[in-house]
Amino acid sequence: MPPPQRRPGGRTARIRTQVLDAVLAELGERGYDGLTMDVVAARAGVNRATVYRRWGDVGGLLADVLDAASDDAWRPPDTGSLTGDLAGLNHEIQDALTAEPPIVAALIAASFRSEKAAQAQQRLWEDRYARCEIVVSRAVRRGELPPHTDARRLLIAATAPLYHHLVLLRTPPDPHLPDHAARTAALAASAGAFTEPPSAGDT
Amino acid sequence: MPPPQRRPGGRTARIRTQVLDAVLAELGERGYDGLTMDVVAARAGVNRATVYRRWGDVGGLLADVLDAASDDAWRPPDTGSLTGDLAGLNHEIQDALTAEPPIVAALIAASFRSEKAAQAQQRLWEDRYARCEIVVSRAVRRGELPPHTDARRLLIAATAPLYHHLVLLRTPPDPHLPDHAARTAALAASAGAFTEPPSAGDT
Repeated sequence: MPPPQRRPGGRTARIRTQVLDAVLAELGERGYDGLTMDVVAARAGVNRATVYRRWGDVGGLLADVLDAASDDAWRPPDTGSLTGDLAGLNHEIQDALTAEPPIVAALIAASFRSEKAAQAQQRLWEDRYARCEIVVSRAVRRGELPPHTDARRLLIAATAPLYHHLVLLRTPPDPHLPDHAARTAALAASAGAFTEPPSAGDT
Repeated sequence: MPPPQRRPGGRTARIRTQVLDAVLAELGERGYDGLTMDVVAARAGVNRATVYRRWGDVGGLLADVLDAASDDAWRPPDTGSLTGDLAGLNHEIQDALTAEPPIVAALIAASFRSEKAAQAQQRLWEDRYARCEIVVSRAVRRGELPPHTDARRLLIAATAPLYHHLVLLRTPPDPHLPDHAARTAALAASAGAFTEPPSAGDT
């Protein structure tokens, strides 16, 4: 789940690119607290009125940065094994969450301050997890997993420890965690942990 | 992992209780944005100067609320089985994260705005996870788990999906998730997912 990327286009798209790049640069350098519409407009070299009209407020800018991140061609790793794919995915997550400048971490933090950013962050995660479901269907086809494995629950189980450690518990990055969390989820999945329908087996 | 609780004591302790209760009440009603030293002092009926001298700023107040939460006698569930204990723990987490007023959720959100609050939140989680390790040692003694199971990694795997869904992905609470996440982690643990030393088995 790589950081947001810029994209090409016409004049309107070029202004958007300039503004969103300025948001990312400010966010990386100063975090949410330094982020104002005027600072972004100045850094982007774009008219203030244009920025206000098009994005409304800082939350609108952050939401657009997050929405733009979904416009890429990102695909999850395809290594030939479930554990390998999940481990590769977890390494990408750990790299993104510990990158310098800490843009992904700053966007997640900002989503606790702006409802618009929070909703856009949710859309981005939904997009990324949806793209990752192919990792599970490939594993089912290879016979690594039982049919009817719940892809989303498996993907959450595999990736949640990374987010929990790095975003909430804020422990120093553990270089072994991406592989461990991947192996743990794959082991549970092979044992059928994600095959029952959610309404069965619980009290 | 229950919400912070008040505690008895002498006059200094009584002022602390009044102030921390006021912080919790304000946080529950208005969230971080409505929280100021003056609002808290007024609500607590405590002299403003006392509040400033003792807690310094809003971050100091939040940090003390979180530190006070560790002064309780909380223990993890003891149901007689690993899956039962982990499920009980996950239900407590889900209840705390979805409670109204949303005090635990507001404290976590505040930890993205104040470094002092973030450090106190980390201390609280460290305290809670340390208290939970007995769940794993009891399961090892009962023969449910292999010896040398890494308690912390197992506890993180069991609880991380709850935090990921409710705090980051902000999906609606799934009544089955506490049990599912517990069963998944227990299954992986029985299969030995948490027994290897962290430096072995990875590439």
